[in-house]
Amino acid sequence: MPHIDLGNDAPGILSLFEYRPETAKPLLDLAEVLLRGPSTLTRGERELIASYVSTLNDCNFCGDSHAAFAAAQLPEGMPLVDQVRADPAAAPVSAKLRALLAIAAAVQGSGRNVSAAEVAAARAEGATDLEIHDTVLIAAAFCLYNRYVDGLATVLPDDPAGYSAMAELIVSMGYAATAPMPAESL
Amino acid sequence: MPHIDLGNDAPGILSLFEYRPETAKPLLDLAEVLLRGPSTLTRGERELIASYVSTLNDCNFCGDSHAAFAAAQLPEGMPLVDQVRADPAAAPVSAKLRALLAIAAAVQGSGRNVSAAEVAAARAEGATDLEIHDTVLIAAAFCLYNRYVDGLATVLPDDPAGYSAMAELIVSMGYAATAPMPAESL
Repeated sequence: MPHIDLGNDAPGILSLFEYRPETAKPLLDLAEVLLRGPSTLTRGERELIASYVSTLNDCNFCGDSHAAFAAAQLPEGMPLVDQVRADPAAAPVSAKLRALLAIAAAVQGSGRNVSAAEVAAARAEGATDLEIHDTVLIAAAFCLYNRYVDGLATVLPDDPAGYSAMAELIVSMGYAATAPMPAESL
Repeated sequence: MPHIDLGNDAPGILSLFEYRPETAKPLLDLAEVLLRGPSTLTRGERELIASYVSTLNDCNFCGDSHAAFAAAQLPEGMPLVDQVRADPAAAPVSAKLRALLAIAAAVQGSGRNVSAAEVAAARAEGATDLEIHDTVLIAAAFCLYNRYVDGLATVLPDDPAGYSAMAELIVSMGYAATAPMPAESL
């Protein structure tokens, strides 16, 4: 049961978006830019970083929902997502993505944990400065979303199939589709 | 030295806002709603929570800058801010604010660390559901900002007096004043 009366039965962060539309707007805008905006990282790769960091933070709602969003946008689908969440060092991803996942894992612990050596390793595998920047910010952003979802003890969906339905919506329409009301009206 | 070439010499998060205006916009919008928007918590109280969480995350730029923003908006000024950052349990703040600071400290570790007992304690001291919500989200947000600032190894201002100048700007004009360009143009 959530720690506060949210006035709705939506699962996870969706219940918080409905409860407080004023903060939902910038939180959704940030997700849209980072996970779906123009980038040399694919949308699937970025959702994979999001799901992996959420897994490290032990956040079931974000880990499983962004796993569904990643799987829907990666040719390898859920098997690859499961491998990355379990052991990114052994998962069959590009050397560049593996190095970026290592940076994301460092950020999850603390910004101070990111070493010059990890950044150099990513750069040696072809990562650009902007890709390194966005990886750090995606990892940092999920340290927010995860704490928000669990810090208020939001509920999980009754049926895990709900994550696939959310994935269809987000893949086709973007994060604004999950806003409590049309984003223009906020 | 920052981990990537930011193309500017601004300190802390300001250098990141200049480097990536697309993500600066939602990050500044979120800070504006949470720390300065309509609320039954004063702006000084909210900046105090922000500075305290940043201190727990060992983030010097955010800890010291939001300390300056809090001090500028609290009748007790910097002495109270210093006491809260050092030991909130002993600082002369209201029982409600002390209970909210305890929730913020739990969130800093993990969303899962927030207990029903801590929420009940805050409520017993008069905290509303919305105040509890906003405290959780402020603490979660600074787990993002702190990791972003330190994960890319941004630099501190040469002169700590810079924080007071930033405080004047933010108190009078809001967070949009620190945007890399007029917010309307983004």
